[in-house]
Amino acid sequence: MKNIIQPVKGTREFYPLEMAVRNWIYENIRNVSESFGYSEYDGPFLEPTDLYAAKSGEELVKEQSFVFPDRGGNLITLRPELTPSLARMVAQKQRQLVYPLRWWSFGPFWRYEKPQKGRAREFFQWNIDLIGSKSPEADAELIAICAEFFKQIGLTPDNVKVLINDRRLMDQKLSELGIEASLKKMTLKIIDRQDKMDRSTWKAYALDNGLKEEQFVGLTKILGNTDLYQESAELQTVFNALESLGVREYVQFDPKIVRGLDYYTGVVFEARDIGKGARAILGGGRYDNLVKDVGGEPLTGVGFAMGDVVLPIILEQYGLIPDLQVNPTQILVTIFDENLMPVSLATAANLRRAGFSVQTYPEPAKIGKQLKFADRCAVQFAIVIGPEEKEQGIVQVKDLRTREQSSVPTDGLIKYINGMLAE
Amino acid sequence: MKNIIQPVKGTREFYPLEMAVRNWIYENIRNVSESFGYSEYDGPFLEPTDLYAAKSGEELVKEQSFVFPDRGGNLITLRPELTPSLARMVAQKQRQLVYPLRWWSFGPFWRYEKPQKGRAREFFQWNIDLIGSKSPEADAELIAICAEFFKQIGLTPDNVKVLINDRRLMDQKLSELGIEASLKKMTLKIIDRQDKMDRSTWKAYALDNGLKEEQFVGLTKILGNTDLYQESAELQTVFNALESLGVREYVQFDPKIVRGLDYYTGVVFEARDIGKGARAILGGGRYDNLVKDVGGEPLTGVGFAMGDVVLPIILEQYGLIPDLQVNPTQILVTIFDENLMPVSLATAANLRRAGFSVQTYPEPAKIGKQLKFADRCAVQFAIVIGPEEKEQGIVQVKDLRTREQSSVPTDGLIKYINGMLAE
Repeated sequence: MKNIIQPVKGTREFYPLEMAVRNWIYENIRNVSESFGYSEYDGPFLEPTDLYAAKSGEELVKEQSFVFPDRGGNLITLRPELTPSLARMVAQKQRQLVYPLRWWSFGPFWRYEKPQKGRAREFFQWNIDLIGSKSPEADAELIAICAEFFKQIGLTPDNVKVLINDRRLMDQKLSELGIEASLKKMTLKIIDRQDKMDRSTWKAYALDNGLKEEQFVGLTKILGNTDLYQESAELQTVFNALESLGVREYVQFDPKIVRGLDYYTGVVFEARDIGKGARAILGGGRYDNLVKDVGGEPLTGVGFAMGDVVLPIILEQYGLIPDLQVNPTQILVTIFDENLMPVSLATAANLRRAGFSVQTYPEPAKIGKQLKFADRCAVQFAIVIGPEEKEQGIVQVKDLRTREQSSVPTDGLIKYINGMLAE
Repeated sequence: MKNIIQPVKGTREFYPLEMAVRNWIYENIRNVSESFGYSEYDGPFLEPTDLYAAKSGEELVKEQSFVFPDRGGNLITLRPELTPSLARMVAQKQRQLVYPLRWWSFGPFWRYEKPQKGRAREFFQWNIDLIGSKSPEADAELIAICAEFFKQIGLTPDNVKVLINDRRLMDQKLSELGIEASLKKMTLKIIDRQDKMDRSTWKAYALDNGLKEEQFVGLTKILGNTDLYQESAELQTVFNALESLGVREYVQFDPKIVRGLDYYTGVVFEARDIGKGARAILGGGRYDNLVKDVGGEPLTGVGFAMGDVVLPIILEQYGLIPDLQVNPTQILVTIFDENLMPVSLATAANLRRAGFSVQTYPEPAKIGKQLKFADRCAVQFAIVIGPEEKEQGIVQVKDLRTREQSSVPTDGLIKYINGMLAE
């Protein structure tokens, strides 16, 4: 097996077990999203690079995206995120759509990152957004959706927290420190980088990028002040709504959360494992200008995105991934010999029409070999039809859990299997 | 709305209605695939160009694929098909996997084709394959899966047919015409192009590419001979198996079917709308060398792929796309005013925990406006909680189908809604 063509670094192969995990996550996402009344949608996977250039932030577009020219020379990007596509789709049908608009999606994204544990270049992402309401209760709803998702898959407030902040509050505090408008975007970047550097490197980074010594000292005070949300009417309303929604215990104010995307304008949040990894599981926030920025009329939005790479690592750590069914097959119909192929095929077809998942062995082979195959597929029943069975109008049904075997009349087979399954 | 950033030509936007259609197709695919005992899997979306270069055929790789260099200069392809990835995944775990192996998948693919009705540059595709059996009954099983899929979505044998042929049979007939081995691949291409050209263009194409006049005449006779399958033991076994499986009427021999991919080695098939469009819906066949060609031990396979672009066009033509639910919401909880926000949020949260899909209006607004929103979302129930209701511990439930309104005690609300839904 030496010359197998290798997959591209950072891409994903979903063998049936990995696929079952992806589907289990998708199903939980669907349940929670639909429970809040959100409709599923999807955008294109290829987008013009211009769509991101405006507002996603330079790092994402220039360093972290797969960008290539199409045959006409236009720059195309493999979507690194969905919100700009969502904004464009809304802008295109802005007058026909009904607001508040609640949409969710689950699909593939690409980022050119160094592949490592918790990072892949291809990943799946849940996106969920509420468009057309400025209320803090809309922000709270999205945060409650995170919390309900965690609750549903078994993560408690002792495992994970949604950390929230408000860029408007930070903007006000930065003004109070005398940080000029032109330096504010950079300051948010400095805050965002804090936990990626050690203390002295981070300080040097802050001062190199224009903060004065006393502004830096002031900034560290702000970032340590966990009561700061009391200065924000919006955040207090968000917390009250979260209380009413019954998920307050999952949520915590954290002034260090500002998120990296340029388009956020208000409440921002990030969910983290609170174990020692402190890995970010999802992030989101309010964006009030994005629909306008892609060419629509002004329209506000709030939403978040969660990838599928970090989550399973955390779930495994807490033993929360259930035993998942990898092979749907319930019944194997064996093939006694070439002459008896037709009766076995017809029996399988009848069982399928009755709603069962049925495989036939695709060719005659020793019955022992076929039964071993049934065991390896974790099939529950194996059916054997030899010449005598055919003549008598019966089949042999082996229950592979109990190893018991019964002779069952062909015309009573469906009823028999249903009975066994109901036991 | 003049300056909206345009999507890339040939890409797809799935608004909730289009998404519901995609999901409906996916669900039908899942049902049929699982009914035959196949497990879901998925491959990477980005693959090294080398993976396709070997065996998919020059046209697909050089003309129809999105190919670009990664940052290290290696050529990467957006997957135009799945079979080579499947072969590689099998080769990588060849000793651990259980055979016969039955796998299916549904996901995005890309081809650089001229966008037109029935063609897109981004599309979804169903792939389903049986690996590790050489028997004609394995070929028949895949064809039966096509037929059962058509049956399930309502397409009858009067609407669609699966046309089948065998490349081994064609190879033998081409030998009988004195067509040399070196010209056979080209001859298959000539056959494959027949219905894309008018008669005289096609003849010129055949002669220009090396066929002699008498070989061309012989070839047209072969392509018109619908009894030719009687010379193929394999095809006769396939037809017998299809008879046993109860789907013979969906299938027809057609010597003009050879399929375009280079890696097919035996039975090949294509399903077509038999209306005047005669559009190809899906195609597949047997490939006995592909696992070896990507670096594994020799292992046979048979499978097919169906895109999601042509199928809905045909289904619409026959009126077979059902009314699909676009918005999952069952209940809207209105917001009377800011003071009553908490009781409405808490009521919504309780209803969600009872399993209902519930939206709240995200801010206080005139009740009439909120009810109009409920109607536009096709919500069944709207709940109003004003100051009096709160004081009395009741809620008003409006059934938006009948416009009837009832006062319901808060603690009996879940039971009440369940009762209304059971009616």
